[in-house]
Amino acid sequence: MGRILARLKGFQKLTGIDDALSIFLKELNPGRLEPEKVQMPVALGRVTVQDVVADWDLPSFDRSAVDGYAVRARDTFEASQVEPKVLRIARGERVGEREVREVWTGNSLPEGTDAVVMLEHTKRKKNEVEVWSPITPGENVSKKGEDVRKGQVAVRAGTRLRPHHVGLLAALGMTSIAVVRKPRIAIFSTGDELVDMGHKPEANQVIDVNRLILSGMCQELGASVVDMGITKDDRSEIESKIREGVRQGDVLITTGGTSVGHDDLVPAIMNQVGSPGMVVHGIAMRPAMPTALAVVQGKPVIVLSGNPVAAMIGFEVFARELILKLLGIESEPRPMLRARLSRQVPSALGRRGFLRVRVFKKDGEFLARPVRVKGSGILSTMTEANGYVIIPEDREGLDGGEAVTVHLFDRIEV
Amino acid sequence: MGRILARLKGFQKLTGIDDALSIFLKELNPGRLEPEKVQMPVALGRVTVQDVVADWDLPSFDRSAVDGYAVRARDTFEASQVEPKVLRIARGERVGEREVREVWTGNSLPEGTDAVVMLEHTKRKKNEVEVWSPITPGENVSKKGEDVRKGQVAVRAGTRLRPHHVGLLAALGMTSIAVVRKPRIAIFSTGDELVDMGHKPEANQVIDVNRLILSGMCQELGASVVDMGITKDDRSEIESKIREGVRQGDVLITTGGTSVGHDDLVPAIMNQVGSPGMVVHGIAMRPAMPTALAVVQGKPVIVLSGNPVAAMIGFEVFARELILKLLGIESEPRPMLRARLSRQVPSALGRRGFLRVRVFKKDGEFLARPVRVKGSGILSTMTEANGYVIIPEDREGLDGGEAVTVHLFDRIEV
Repeated sequence: MGRILARLKGFQKLTGIDDALSIFLKELNPGRLEPEKVQMPVALGRVTVQDVVADWDLPSFDRSAVDGYAVRARDTFEASQVEPKVLRIARGERVGEREVREVWTGNSLPEGTDAVVMLEHTKRKKNEVEVWSPITPGENVSKKGEDVRKGQVAVRAGTRLRPHHVGLLAALGMTSIAVVRKPRIAIFSTGDELVDMGHKPEANQVIDVNRLILSGMCQELGASVVDMGITKDDRSEIESKIREGVRQGDVLITTGGTSVGHDDLVPAIMNQVGSPGMVVHGIAMRPAMPTALAVVQGKPVIVLSGNPVAAMIGFEVFARELILKLLGIESEPRPMLRARLSRQVPSALGRRGFLRVRVFKKDGEFLARPVRVKGSGILSTMTEANGYVIIPEDREGLDGGEAVTVHLFDRIEV
Repeated sequence: MGRILARLKGFQKLTGIDDALSIFLKELNPGRLEPEKVQMPVALGRVTVQDVVADWDLPSFDRSAVDGYAVRARDTFEASQVEPKVLRIARGERVGEREVREVWTGNSLPEGTDAVVMLEHTKRKKNEVEVWSPITPGENVSKKGEDVRKGQVAVRAGTRLRPHHVGLLAALGMTSIAVVRKPRIAIFSTGDELVDMGHKPEANQVIDVNRLILSGMCQELGASVVDMGITKDDRSEIESKIREGVRQGDVLITTGGTSVGHDDLVPAIMNQVGSPGMVVHGIAMRPAMPTALAVVQGKPVIVLSGNPVAAMIGFEVFARELILKLLGIESEPRPMLRARLSRQVPSALGRRGFLRVRVFKKDGEFLARPVRVKGSGILSTMTEANGYVIIPEDREGLDGGEAVTVHLFDRIEV
């Protein structure tokens, strides 16, 4: 275990998060992955490749927005409940002067009419209709092209399709859509102490949960996972997994084996396998300081801590950004809100802090209560929290009562 | 089409949203659906049936939270960089007085020690270690049970499992978990004017997109969909679909055919098919006023507007609440935030308004810009918006600059 302990004592230099990301992305220059065509019902959650332009006007005709009577608006002027205008039900194709025709929501506007009187403002009497209130031209009419005009961009490139997007595209006649193929994320864990789910851990052993957590985070982002299992702290085993991982995945994520001294085997081997190998090791952040970023055979490799909370935060900051880039999504921040911090919290100057908080609503105001910060291995701090607050590098902490931005990763209690 | 026009003119009485929901739920008394067992990796997004209690302490042993040397804390007292304490590397099983042992993050704490000095605060010299700073007992140690104690509730009943929950359960030795089975939502659309996706609409025809949108909303909630297609405005066809829908689904949702006058066929048939049939018709809200709620053969039926935006809002208010109840989730509000409304907006007194807004961040503050409100058929108002603001029944509108709560249904731009 302590094989290479003597080599390093602490990271020589920590790299700031922004620098780390820009070094990493500059080395990689990751582009959007290839498109693939999917049928509309399964397009939900997928990401558009290009601006989708409307092939026709929506609505494709002037249509009634209500149930009622289509009229010439001017025939209703000065109508009132006391002195209603009495109009005839039209018989021919065309609706003439002082005539009306029944229409229902969504019907096309009959020729000759320019507005619709709502049913509630009329009274039918045999072949005539009393109109009780005046309307203006265009009233209660959805004009042709009012929703989307032919040639207009209906949904932009890089949009993650939600039900309303899919609905709009279908309304424009589309049955399939070009989306970015799912990024493939290869993941393995390293550590002699790890046992797989389903095995009872013996003394000194720990169940490997990071692969499961990181896989879930990938899935939530719309990526697919290549699960490469657990690797022992063995140079040749790790090396072959790294080679296999960058071959199979668009991204390789490893967890464990990054602490200085202990098994920094993974970073060392990374340098051997491919140039440039490690590009950043040791980030000025807390937790997740021992995160490392590498480029091996042209593929991005993210080496996360073995501590589950540090692994999650490292994923959030680096892997999430990278996966969004591969999906062609410019920005997809988590839902956020402004809240008042319930108490003062310390932080290390020069490191970006990720403070787990539980946000709740109290007296119409959002409060953020810091979850005990001790230990980046304490998973229950994540299940207790529903968001995190970023503490900037130039602050020694946050004040009690301070207004902060909370990035939500789970539901709020109200 | 106008068959039963004469029968009704406007809803006799609108029911408030809260009353409507409570009438509906009282009539139904919906319980949580049955549990089913699923393997941990596919439990993501599913909802726990019962409180999950830890079978063992997590961690299951006192373990080091850092890389360094396990010591008796008292042996480090008064250590400094100028006058380091010099301790021996232990040779036996037990670590004795003035002895240390190398440990790595996650290792169990050797017998005889009570704290761990970080590697960075030491210097190794052959069989001795210089300790440069004093530590207190328990420092850098994750105590047994510190994360979760045996017998403690690790994840509560009614929790929608996210990656961190699944990770915590796996860490506690679970490989499968009892979750609520997915609610089955049967959906059909009604309307002679509707054509299915993939068919080019002729004059007066409209592509049915509501089924697609509502199916997507069901999927996002973790429900499965029974797609029952389009039904013509035909009494016997609608009747048989309703019977089939309540047989196959835990919930039946119909869209279209609810406007007064036009095809209120669906509500009328609902009353024939089963008692009590319609329980609420016409809600004091905008949009989605013509929404109806029914109970047919013991099953909930939600009759939504044919206008896509009104259908979405009706789903949000009634179907979403009901599906969460069937999942055993007490409350799962959408992410929300407080924002400043960019301009004044009118609203009808006595109706709860759902104002679509686009939230964005400007100068560190969140602003909510109302999306043009015209027409509940205008789908692009949903793709343009990323949230909605509720206008209470007792307000005639909202003021420009007013602080409002926005319920987010899509990402925020930053």
